Amino acid sequence: MTGRTRAEVVCVGSELLSGRVDTHTSFLARRLAEASVTLARSTSVPDELPAVREAVAAAAARADLVLVCGGLGPTFDDITRDATASAFGRSLTFQPALYARIVRRYRRYRMRVPSNNRRQAFLIGGARALDNPNGSAPGQRLEAPGGRPVYLLPGPPSELKPMFEACVLPELMRRFGGGATAARRVFRFYGVAEAACDQRLAPVLKAFPDVEFTILADLGLVELHAAARAPRASSAQARLKKVEARVARAMGSAYYSREGDSLPGAVLNLLARRGWTLATAESCTGGLIAAQLTEVPGSSAAFRGGAVAYSNALKESLLGVPAGVLARSGAVSEETARAMAAGARQRLGADAALAVTGIAGPSGGTKAKPVGLVYIAASVPGRTEVVRRVFPGDRGQVRRRTATHALGLLRRLLTV
Amino acid sequence: MTGRTRAEVVCVGSELLSGRVDTHTSFLARRLAEASVTLARSTSVPDELPAVREAVAAAAARADLVLVCGGLGPTFDDITRDATASAFGRSLTFQPALYARIVRRYRRYRMRVPSNNRRQAFLIGGARALDNPNGSAPGQRLEAPGGRPVYLLPGPPSELKPMFEACVLPELMRRFGGGATAARRVFRFYGVAEAACDQRLAPVLKAFPDVEFTILADLGLVELHAAARAPRASSAQARLKKVEARVARAMGSAYYSREGDSLPGAVLNLLARRGWTLATAESCTGGLIAAQLTEVPGSSAAFRGGAVAYSNALKESLLGVPAGVLARSGAVSEETARAMAAGARQRLGADAALAVTGIAGPSGGTKAKPVGLVYIAASVPGRTEVVRRVFPGDRGQVRRRTATHALGLLRRLLTV
Repeated sequence: MTGRTRAEVVCVGSELLSGRVDTHTSFLARRLAEASVTLARSTSVPDELPAVREAVAAAAARADLVLVCGGLGPTFDDITRDATASAFGRSLTFQPALYARIVRRYRRYRMRVPSNNRRQAFLIGGARALDNPNGSAPGQRLEAPGGRPVYLLPGPPSELKPMFEACVLPELMRRFGGGATAARRVFRFYGVAEAACDQRLAPVLKAFPDVEFTILADLGLVELHAAARAPRASSAQARLKKVEARVARAMGSAYYSREGDSLPGAVLNLLARRGWTLATAESCTGGLIAAQLTEVPGSSAAFRGGAVAYSNALKESLLGVPAGVLARSGAVSEETARAMAAGARQRLGADAALAVTGIAGPSGGTKAKPVGLVYIAASVPGRTEVVRRVFPGDRGQVRRRTATHALGLLRRLLTV
Repeated sequence: MTGRTRAEVVCVGSELLSGRVDTHTSFLARRLAEASVTLARSTSVPDELPAVREAVAAAAARADLVLVCGGLGPTFDDITRDATASAFGRSLTFQPALYARIVRRYRRYRMRVPSNNRRQAFLIGGARALDNPNGSAPGQRLEAPGGRPVYLLPGPPSELKPMFEACVLPELMRRFGGGATAARRVFRFYGVAEAACDQRLAPVLKAFPDVEFTILADLGLVELHAAARAPRASSAQARLKKVEARVARAMGSAYYSREGDSLPGAVLNLLARRGWTLATAESCTGGLIAAQLTEVPGSSAAFRGGAVAYSNALKESLLGVPAGVLARSGAVSEETARAMAAGARQRLGADAALAVTGIAGPSGGTKAKPVGLVYIAASVPGRTEVVRRVFPGDRGQVRRRTATHALGLLRRLLTV
């Protein structure tokens, strides 16, 4: 991490020090990488003027650029403007034009303009306002001593993210990315441990020293973010195409998406391409797979619906699992999973089906059928596959791993 | 925030500056409050010795105590031990007894001891090792100049949290909490905007200046964390009972849990108390309500199952919604929601039912039936209620708000 442009993030907000989780840092880290900027530090400070002033000044003294998030609202505890002005010994002046824009925004939504909203129309000396199409607080851009850019961005993610995209990233690309534009892609993998993924991807990362990579992993899902920069967008895209070929070779069937599609999204696309519909039959995941599928916009094109059959009685009545199968093999068995999938296809009138039955815990396990044991059945026209797995972790982790594994299994049947 | 004990958190890990979200800070912030300790700053730094050394030294110079999270592993980039020793000019010495404990742990799990694991047995001069029952990295506790405690904690949450509970919090209670023990409770509310919640709770918070409160809000759910300290646990509990009475009065029917129960958990408890079973019938939420209910351990006692009926055909075949209702009123209508609930009770053999149908977006909306429109039906023996709502936000937000609102509606029917 040498010779690179180094940024620092300062998050302003007492709520971040009272239990609310900071999501700005992770978002900014990934997007800064596109402009070849490394995030060197993130600091969260409360809504207290001395703390914000000190943190902003210290960050500006260390880093090549600073992003200050939050504290631009209209209320008395929104002190980022004052603290930043004070950190650099600047004035704050009322901008009638800026205020007129804020007032227009309120009127457009037929809302009364709160009297304290004038606060948002004060600009730091030498700063430029950054347009906020999604909220009342304008951002600000100024230069710290030495010409290092400092950006003040609003706290709500729905305002911060578009402002970063529109006003900050292009400027960083010009300034630190050699005037380049960036193309990015998110490659996704499942069913590979993070360490194994790291190992398999290492040669790829080495082969493209000009591309920015970030690896993120969570419960059986791994993401590789790649950003290529080039003077023209087309050449950046071409570079990513080469990355993609290497990634596909290195990761094989674990690689399921190059468009940033979620695993459910990838499965739904494969189904749509064949004109097939899907139904789910869930016991231990209790609707989680259906919920993940229907989180995808337009999922109704391929997803017909599902049955959450927690009790044996519902496995029989909703899915037509024969009582004999349940009596002979038990609810958590290969035979039951297979019957659930067959029942889902038939009863819900779908071409393909996913069925899961297992013991999510914390109780209900035995020596023969421990907590974490699941049977997953995936069925497509002409082929049904059932796998047995014992997943580690608590109830929630077992359920999420099961859902991921089920969608991965179906995807495999749809790609062979 | 004056006169209070002030802590700082330093999170060590390049992954936190590459896109992974930091959850340590929010956890520690809430638990520190119990010992009357305010979190004054949180800093994330990469796995680079100079950055960690500087951040730890600066935190120790400002705060009354410092918690350093992560970087205690066995690999070369785990540099928290070295950086902290260097920050305070201390030595690092190999502890054979500590190493023996690490080796025993590996043997217990029949794992080979990695050769680089010796690194984890080095203790900073003057430090005391903190036992880690959930991982190989011991924690460390030392005193910075002026006797300010500095704790080094492992990065994985499953190791950090138990170590904090067992080794750090009791010491903080003795030292900064006047030897008190703390009792804590999480009160939960739904269907109240955060600002309205703040307003209604303000007098309660004012009435108990000795109790630590934190308010957190997310998509229609609000949490109030309360921690009371007293020399004896029984008196701390008694204090919280008084808080509870005031909270209940201030929040009325929006208040659904004093035990930290989730909203689904509270609903399941109310059902179990009456010996009633529940079935769900979901369209736009696509299994989300069933998934939330079954996330609760033991939910099978009351939850029988559900139908995810995305298509009109499945609304008819799985739930028995009359074709005439769908033709006359449409899939997104009060009549359909009511018929779905009735069908779920009958077809799935449950005493109570929740049914939702709506338009989650982003497409599918019309002027008469806009994106965000949902009908929610809750049904218990002798009573069915249907509400119409138009929720703001994107697809995911509309779905989550709908699920919360549905569970809240059922809860209301179960408490009147």
